[in-house]
Amino acid sequence: MKNKADVIQYLLHDKKTSLPTQPVSVFAPSNIALIKYWGKRDAALNLPQTASLSVTIPGKGATTEISILDNKQDEIYLNGMLLSSQHPFFKKAVDYLDLFRPMTRCHYRINTTSNIPIAAGLASSASGFAALVLALDRLHQWQCSLTALSIAARLGSGSACRSLWSGFVLWQSGIAEDGMDSHGIALKEQWPELRLGFTMISDQPKAISSREGMNRTTNTSALYRAWPDKVSQDLQALQQALAQKEFTTFGEIVESNALAMHATMMAAWPPVVYSQPETLEHMQRIWQLREQGIPVYFTQDAGPNLKLLFLVKDEENIRQHFPGLDVVTLF
Amino acid sequence: MKNKADVIQYLLHDKKTSLPTQPVSVFAPSNIALIKYWGKRDAALNLPQTASLSVTIPGKGATTEISILDNKQDEIYLNGMLLSSQHPFFKKAVDYLDLFRPMTRCHYRINTTSNIPIAAGLASSASGFAALVLALDRLHQWQCSLTALSIAARLGSGSACRSLWSGFVLWQSGIAEDGMDSHGIALKEQWPELRLGFTMISDQPKAISSREGMNRTTNTSALYRAWPDKVSQDLQALQQALAQKEFTTFGEIVESNALAMHATMMAAWPPVVYSQPETLEHMQRIWQLREQGIPVYFTQDAGPNLKLLFLVKDEENIRQHFPGLDVVTLF
Repeated sequence: MKNKADVIQYLLHDKKTSLPTQPVSVFAPSNIALIKYWGKRDAALNLPQTASLSVTIPGKGATTEISILDNKQDEIYLNGMLLSSQHPFFKKAVDYLDLFRPMTRCHYRINTTSNIPIAAGLASSASGFAALVLALDRLHQWQCSLTALSIAARLGSGSACRSLWSGFVLWQSGIAEDGMDSHGIALKEQWPELRLGFTMISDQPKAISSREGMNRTTNTSALYRAWPDKVSQDLQALQQALAQKEFTTFGEIVESNALAMHATMMAAWPPVVYSQPETLEHMQRIWQLREQGIPVYFTQDAGPNLKLLFLVKDEENIRQHFPGLDVVTLF
Repeated sequence: MKNKADVIQYLLHDKKTSLPTQPVSVFAPSNIALIKYWGKRDAALNLPQTASLSVTIPGKGATTEISILDNKQDEIYLNGMLLSSQHPFFKKAVDYLDLFRPMTRCHYRINTTSNIPIAAGLASSASGFAALVLALDRLHQWQCSLTALSIAARLGSGSACRSLWSGFVLWQSGIAEDGMDSHGIALKEQWPELRLGFTMISDQPKAISSREGMNRTTNTSALYRAWPDKVSQDLQALQQALAQKEFTTFGEIVESNALAMHATMMAAWPPVVYSQPETLEHMQRIWQLREQGIPVYFTQDAGPNLKLLFLVKDEENIRQHFPGLDVVTLF
């Protein structure tokens, strides 16, 4: 299996495709990587260079309503707006639906409503593709396993494969050429005291897409070759910290991993820098809080907004230093 | 030779030490690394992990007046202020003078005046130690070669070994255990059209010294191991760009090398970040100017201030976008 269409065909080879007239609606949550996914070992199949580990954000994500359309092309709405065929999201969605078309032989009306900003480094594409694949499965009544749906979601957007479960999710890099072992796995650890806080520096789409940033980094950054080992070490240490609920170690690994990812980008050419001046102000504020003994750490994705990690006991204190912080309970 | 004192003794073994009563005064310029020195292969002898390449800043640096003092300890003034024995600069200077004491058997009155801010990432220690070693040589009439003085200066502060010449200077990493092949070499290339502009975000001493930042990076940054190869590649490419006066290539290598150095630091733990929010604003302004077709690049040392590199033809234009820019002519 050398391309995405082959993989989808394989995943659905023993499924019967229903073509119901009623629309279905599903929700998929966003997820934030604590150990980052940055770089592919196979671009055609969206296979990652390394494993990654995320936490799912309950209640934040995408709701997708899907129905079969008696038409020669798809009709796609994003937050209620009909998208033109030139819209990047339209193209991505249609390309993805085309993978299923040999089995489904139909077109769709799709309305995706996201309660997080699109393309601002807030994992909107992860929940978007997870919701889309869940919606297709529900609509056509395939009853695929979550593992199969995770593989299918990965073909849309790598990080989407982690949005099929709540809590901590490990995305194994896998070693198989066809990527059948590269999917999310729910971890058993729970951490009810853990909080994640979103700062909102900008909800504007980023100038450099994650995909472009990732490609540029792997192609031009002299530091990237040290990244896979960094991830292996961090991943092992983080799983241990999770098992033992050692928050300081947990926070240090998460923050260090995010900074190292951004460091590989900074050494790319042209430089890939998602931080804004305000991002650095927020980092400095977090480091100052730590110097004052308040255990708060951050992670940062392909955008300027930081996500703060802390325990519920410190929530009020941290809110005072970050007015407007959007705090979510993860378990 | 396993320590600094052995090296100084070796360098002076055939010299006669005069003890004149008249003070002497010398000036040594600062230098800015275009290919950075970051990490040591031998901490005891200040031997670098990699070679580096700098350009000397004419007229900016340290003037050191030295005379022999009939006393049991040194008297050291920095910018006219007598330093207490607790001052870090006092300790560094006295430790350095102690290396020479077996031969000189005297103490000194030293007054160093710097026309650049101290410890703000503006290479104040490079010019300081270069001026000190030149002053000792002049005072005692050793008439050491510049190569010998470069080795001696390196023992005070690594980058000081590049401040003995004007123009472009290569600091060879060397392979000898005693570091006798690790010193500056003047390069023959001249580039009269080249300009360097200092922005002044902060002239305050940095929170993390270069030495501490370097140690923390080499000890904890997972990305540091990719740094030596990055330097080799950049060094070769930069020398070619210099020979051919290819400004765009020159600028890209210089900026990329500085960003990669800061990237290795960002991945250290605790993170070593010398940038301030305003540093990032300045970077963004430079990248915008390049998008508008104006060839301007930057380098950044262990401090928040950027140094801009451009050609004289673009000077007026760049000054308009960076009011207060301190522009220096290098040749």
